Amino acid sequence: VGSAKRPGEFDLIRRYFAPLAAATPAALGLGDDVAILTPHAGQELVVTTDALVAGIHFLPDDPPANIARKMLRVNLSDLAAKGAVPVGYLMTCAFDGSVDEAWVAGFCSGLAADQAEFGIGLLGGDTISTPGPLTFSVTALGEVPAGRALRRKAAKAGDLVFVSGTLGDSALGLKRLRGGLSRLSSEEGAFLVDRYHLPQPRLQLGRALLETGLSKAGLDISDGLIADLGHVGEESGLAAEIDCRSLPVSSAAKHALDRDPGLIADIVAGGDDYELLFTAPGTAATALAELGHRLELKVTAVGRMIETGPRPPGEVRLLDAEGREIALERRGWQHF
Amino acid sequence: VGSAKRPGEFDLIRRYFAPLAAATPAALGLGDDVAILTPHAGQELVVTTDALVAGIHFLPDDPPANIARKMLRVNLSDLAAKGAVPVGYLMTCAFDGSVDEAWVAGFCSGLAADQAEFGIGLLGGDTISTPGPLTFSVTALGEVPAGRALRRKAAKAGDLVFVSGTLGDSALGLKRLRGGLSRLSSEEGAFLVDRYHLPQPRLQLGRALLETGLSKAGLDISDGLIADLGHVGEESGLAAEIDCRSLPVSSAAKHALDRDPGLIADIVAGGDDYELLFTAPGTAATALAELGHRLELKVTAVGRMIETGPRPPGEVRLLDAEGREIALERRGWQHF
Repeated sequence: VGSAKRPGEFDLIRRYFAPLAAATPAALGLGDDVAILTPHAGQELVVTTDALVAGIHFLPDDPPANIARKMLRVNLSDLAAKGAVPVGYLMTCAFDGSVDEAWVAGFCSGLAADQAEFGIGLLGGDTISTPGPLTFSVTALGEVPAGRALRRKAAKAGDLVFVSGTLGDSALGLKRLRGGLSRLSSEEGAFLVDRYHLPQPRLQLGRALLETGLSKAGLDISDGLIADLGHVGEESGLAAEIDCRSLPVSSAAKHALDRDPGLIADIVAGGDDYELLFTAPGTAATALAELGHRLELKVTAVGRMIETGPRPPGEVRLLDAEGREIALERRGWQHF
Repeated sequence: VGSAKRPGEFDLIRRYFAPLAAATPAALGLGDDVAILTPHAGQELVVTTDALVAGIHFLPDDPPANIARKMLRVNLSDLAAKGAVPVGYLMTCAFDGSVDEAWVAGFCSGLAADQAEFGIGLLGGDTISTPGPLTFSVTALGEVPAGRALRRKAAKAGDLVFVSGTLGDSALGLKRLRGGLSRLSSEEGAFLVDRYHLPQPRLQLGRALLETGLSKAGLDISDGLIADLGHVGEESGLAAEIDCRSLPVSSAAKHALDRDPGLIADIVAGGDDYELLFTAPGTAATALAELGHRLELKVTAVGRMIETGPRPPGEVRLLDAEGREIALERRGWQHF
């Protein structure tokens, strides 16, 4: 099923994909339709899957190496949030007519770079042609000590809510790519665009949270802080409050916010952050600050988990400096 | 990201997908972005992935329950070929604008039916919107005793080549769906179309081959007998010969062949068979016949593995009644 511009499936596998599996015995050299895996003693396998479509999760003219790396990192971020050590991934690629051999070569160079960075290998996959947009699906596998994975449902009332890194950069980077935020400097713009293209799965932090036991409850922020904190609340039977003043933002995002305070919606609801969100008792705050310092990664308390009261679990209230709720309607916002 | 006709992602998950995961603790209720799995003692995990696109792997107006079942069965067939016992699956669904709630309900009813039939559960997934064709990707997981999986590379020169069931029904069923083979009876047509819609993963046979040790080398026929036997040859460093007279065909396919002998190309190269192809020494033939009898599944010797001679491994020669090679050009064919 090759196109005029692209070698057939078996040639693509031999030339480009098999080398990505060569160092991973579990992949069986991609010669067997399956991978065969055994977790190490005392470990469980953590498995996650995500799909990406051109025009929705990435831009069709993004460099193919960036698309590849973002695709992997989105999945590795899910493993990070559980405290897992990544092992490898399976991938299905639906290539449209725009994909030629150079594109595949660039895509695979991105995969190779991130395989080396994160110590993972390609375990298997399927390559097909599609008349529609370029579409990928990745299944990533990792290991956690049995019974120790961080869970969404483990938050307790009174726990503080922490996030890693800074929020909203990716959403603002996408705005910049689309021609917005024109008053930012080129350095600031490039920083935000890079954050959009290249999420940083917080694997070391997630693993340290599991090993230290400082947090039992976490996830990665893909839908946005409000929505994902809502998921923790739903699973834990709680509500949550966020202090608007505490939100960690990059200096580029801060400059953008100074000019247009309405961009707060992108900070808390833009999504695509791939930072970790986790809960811990206030007594853990000092140890978490030290952990962040050791990992050279900002760790910020942004709010707390509270009892739901009469309303259903999962509600998340964003509070301003005076403790008044900031109402967010979809991606917009307004004060009461 | 719901459409006007369809509930949003979280509602779809709650109403339709979470029930499919309810009986599978490893799925964590679909509430955690990941599944957590531990193989049983002494077992390895076998993992495989396949993607399907509307218009290529199924017809857009196929009943959604059929699409769901075929999608699962294509992946279960890969597990069957390794001798694995299936455990569960992860699934990404890229829904286009044609998918409304009734479609999702039908699709999930097909998944539920096959989960019950094959003893598996939904482990996780991702649901997204696409402007392009309906696209699915499934990652299926199963277990095999450590080190015992059937492999493509384990064929030996002199081994006989066996296939399960009958070949070509699915390719002919697709022809019939597209208006061809009009001289077949409606019963014959319905039989072939059913074979196209609903592959039968040969899980019991694959497992029995592993447990009895009668075969070490197998795969499932998805690309067609010629192509897939070529894969066994490539991985095993061998060539193969097929005796055209021995090919097992259904009575419907036989009637079609009687009218148009050119349809032999669909029998050996049409693909989508999802029957098992495996190799075994001639001394195993009687035991394999008994096994087939016990499983009420036709098991037929169709050829043998041979040394490659001067040519590269993977060559497959199709021989006629006089031992002359039948040359197949793509999906067509011609005698020398």
